[in-house]
Amino acid sequence: MLEFPVIQGQGFRNVVEDGRVTGFSFRLRNPNYRGGPGSMLDGVEVVVDGERIPDHVPLWTLQGRTFTLDELRASTDVRWQLDEPATITVPKPGGLSTGVHHIEVTIFLRRSYIPPLIARTRFRAEAQRVIVPPAPEGGIKYGVSTYSYTGDVNTSMTLEDVFAEIADLGATGIEILGEGNIANYPSPDPAWVDAWHGLVQKYGLTPTNFGSWVDTTRYNGRDLTAEEGAEQLQLDLRLAKELGFTSVRPKFGVISWDLDPHPIWQETVERSLDLAAELDVVICPEIHTPTPIKHPVTQGYVEFIEKSGTEHFKLLIDTGIFNTEVIVDTSEEVDGDGEEIPPHLRPLAVPMSDFVEVLPYTHFIQAKFVEIDDDLHDLHVPWAQIIPTLLDNGWSGYLSSEYEGRREPGRGRDQVRRQHALIRSLVQGS
Amino acid sequence: MLEFPVIQGQGFRNVVEDGRVTGFSFRLRNPNYRGGPGSMLDGVEVVVDGERIPDHVPLWTLQGRTFTLDELRASTDVRWQLDEPATITVPKPGGLSTGVHHIEVTIFLRRSYIPPLIARTRFRAEAQRVIVPPAPEGGIKYGVSTYSYTGDVNTSMTLEDVFAEIADLGATGIEILGEGNIANYPSPDPAWVDAWHGLVQKYGLTPTNFGSWVDTTRYNGRDLTAEEGAEQLQLDLRLAKELGFTSVRPKFGVISWDLDPHPIWQETVERSLDLAAELDVVICPEIHTPTPIKHPVTQGYVEFIEKSGTEHFKLLIDTGIFNTEVIVDTSEEVDGDGEEIPPHLRPLAVPMSDFVEVLPYTHFIQAKFVEIDDDLHDLHVPWAQIIPTLLDNGWSGYLSSEYEGRREPGRGRDQVRRQHALIRSLVQGS
Repeated sequence: MLEFPVIQGQGFRNVVEDGRVTGFSFRLRNPNYRGGPGSMLDGVEVVVDGERIPDHVPLWTLQGRTFTLDELRASTDVRWQLDEPATITVPKPGGLSTGVHHIEVTIFLRRSYIPPLIARTRFRAEAQRVIVPPAPEGGIKYGVSTYSYTGDVNTSMTLEDVFAEIADLGATGIEILGEGNIANYPSPDPAWVDAWHGLVQKYGLTPTNFGSWVDTTRYNGRDLTAEEGAEQLQLDLRLAKELGFTSVRPKFGVISWDLDPHPIWQETVERSLDLAAELDVVICPEIHTPTPIKHPVTQGYVEFIEKSGTEHFKLLIDTGIFNTEVIVDTSEEVDGDGEEIPPHLRPLAVPMSDFVEVLPYTHFIQAKFVEIDDDLHDLHVPWAQIIPTLLDNGWSGYLSSEYEGRREPGRGRDQVRRQHALIRSLVQGS
Repeated sequence: MLEFPVIQGQGFRNVVEDGRVTGFSFRLRNPNYRGGPGSMLDGVEVVVDGERIPDHVPLWTLQGRTFTLDELRASTDVRWQLDEPATITVPKPGGLSTGVHHIEVTIFLRRSYIPPLIARTRFRAEAQRVIVPPAPEGGIKYGVSTYSYTGDVNTSMTLEDVFAEIADLGATGIEILGEGNIANYPSPDPAWVDAWHGLVQKYGLTPTNFGSWVDTTRYNGRDLTAEEGAEQLQLDLRLAKELGFTSVRPKFGVISWDLDPHPIWQETVERSLDLAAELDVVICPEIHTPTPIKHPVTQGYVEFIEKSGTEHFKLLIDTGIFNTEVIVDTSEEVDGDGEEIPPHLRPLAVPMSDFVEVLPYTHFIQAKFVEIDDDLHDLHVPWAQIIPTLLDNGWSGYLSSEYEGRREPGRGRDQVRRQHALIRSLVQGS
């Protein structure tokens, strides 16, 4: 599917020719209600951050071919279809800076059925769009969780659209939620599994982490047994392996305000460790606010790793634990009296020294965030501390974007791009 | 794809059992970010037009099976997936009246990983949704043009979603725009054509009218010749026939403020009439505001029909010509000084007597409209005059919805439902 705004977020980038940045390009959805001949296109005026580029300057790429406006006017065999975006290329030596830009366009179309004097009609659109620099090579790997696109998936994004979006922003890893993204979970059709592998191949992405739930209160009136917990976890380990994932995050039920996991967690894991080793899939409990690193729950996991000596049980760190500011807007309405801030929205501000201590036990990092503003400032997460910490300690695993802000259509897509622009800038600037 | 709002527009209807209306039902998109076991659903409170239905009362239909809340809590083998809506059925003898209703829901889900005391979490949603009565039998046929969903198609609706939407609201005819809806127009892949016929079969819809354009200013510096015009029209006649359509509306370029069609129109049609007869597809020029019925253009078409004696050239009436009020909001930004109302937005208020005169020459009616309010009042089109006129004169052709109001996502879907509710009420009340 295309994005609803005429100016698409996907495809906005600087153009590199012979190693030099010569301009920028972006995609437009046809704003008309019909497709039509390229010869009836009559230019596009672009205003980027207040700088006006006249309507005859941008190049048009349609159906795989690139045209000047004069070439387009003279064309007889190219069309702008409704289901194919046009790519607009604007010459601008040096291109645009990393980050958020304001783009306005006026698209001119000639329409025969409008009186000749006004038949050159215009469609206007504007948007804020993000230049994401290429991923710096080596070190940190860049991924995205489908969780970031909750609400958009199944309503304006197919699974293929998710792959295309992640690949377009230059990330290489895709994280999924088993019970969210697998059609007919827990028994996907073999054709679905084939299609999954086809997408992995087509978009060159690496399956990273697979979200799993051990719902200890699944049944009414009694808790899940460790045997049932292990059955669930093992089902997900096998599904994850089948789809090429290398870790599974089981989210265990909790039994206290402190988020102590249900006591079956340990037996559930113990019963599943042999299978995890056999499949070479790492089981990763998630360290998530309001549970910090210096806390019996996290320490219990670390102890388990040390005692068992396993390579297939490691931590998953959710960067929400580093927040330094209270979260006001989030993805879900929060019940309460409105006076007290719920624990998971308060800043836990886990210090970097604690992070460094557990990094050797950490397999995966979910780059949780809620809002990044137009100046690439994250309102809550101190990336300027986290990124140097990761670099200094040689982290070579994934940072997997997990957008958890408001769920207006398309907002997650835009915010994930901001996050990658921010994080990659910090890596490049180090 | 599902609709973005949790309360879907599609599927809202009264429930009939043994000939009696026993309640109403609607569909919910799973508001959570993961699918999950049915046993963790904990009820849905519904408030319809202020009337509260407690959370244990509604029935849930998931994966084709219907459950009471107690049955759902005890279930072990049913899930609410993210890509499958739940159908909620609310008992209410007599059901809901035709028209717009305000629905609020609070969906309760138990989540194991939230502290036990607050683990019963709630998701709230509200929406205005439309009860469309079944189409009255005989007489007027009810259709929808894909034009109504411009902007939604390719961004949140696939072609199949369009078929599903039209079938769900009880219409039987689908009208398309050739250069809008046919992938790779003018040369659709044979697989696309097969898929089209598969959709026609699956949803039981009848292809009605095929929108075509004769772009007389297609080439820069010269007008289209009648030969080229005929080539375009014949291409569309053949495509229309291949897809099962029974009429083609060629939109000719114009040469004046009065919308006089380009003079090639007549030769273009004459050159194509034999083919139209051979294919049994009717060529329908569109009578569209600001051109009324008592106007040389319309009268020229009628004269042509009478002189040629053809059965394959007839009028298409766009109901915008009957408007009694100025249009303020429309689908496209209108250029101008903001002082003078553009001609096509002024009310032409063509009298019913003129309409009756040309009905024998009319093949198809596009039920153009811009806005219908919460009381099913059309702000511009006098349906209370049009519908009795059609009934009194035995019209048995299509009324094909053509929504042309603002293009916020999903608005066309909602407005088309309002229009069908309004028109069918008038037919039933006559």
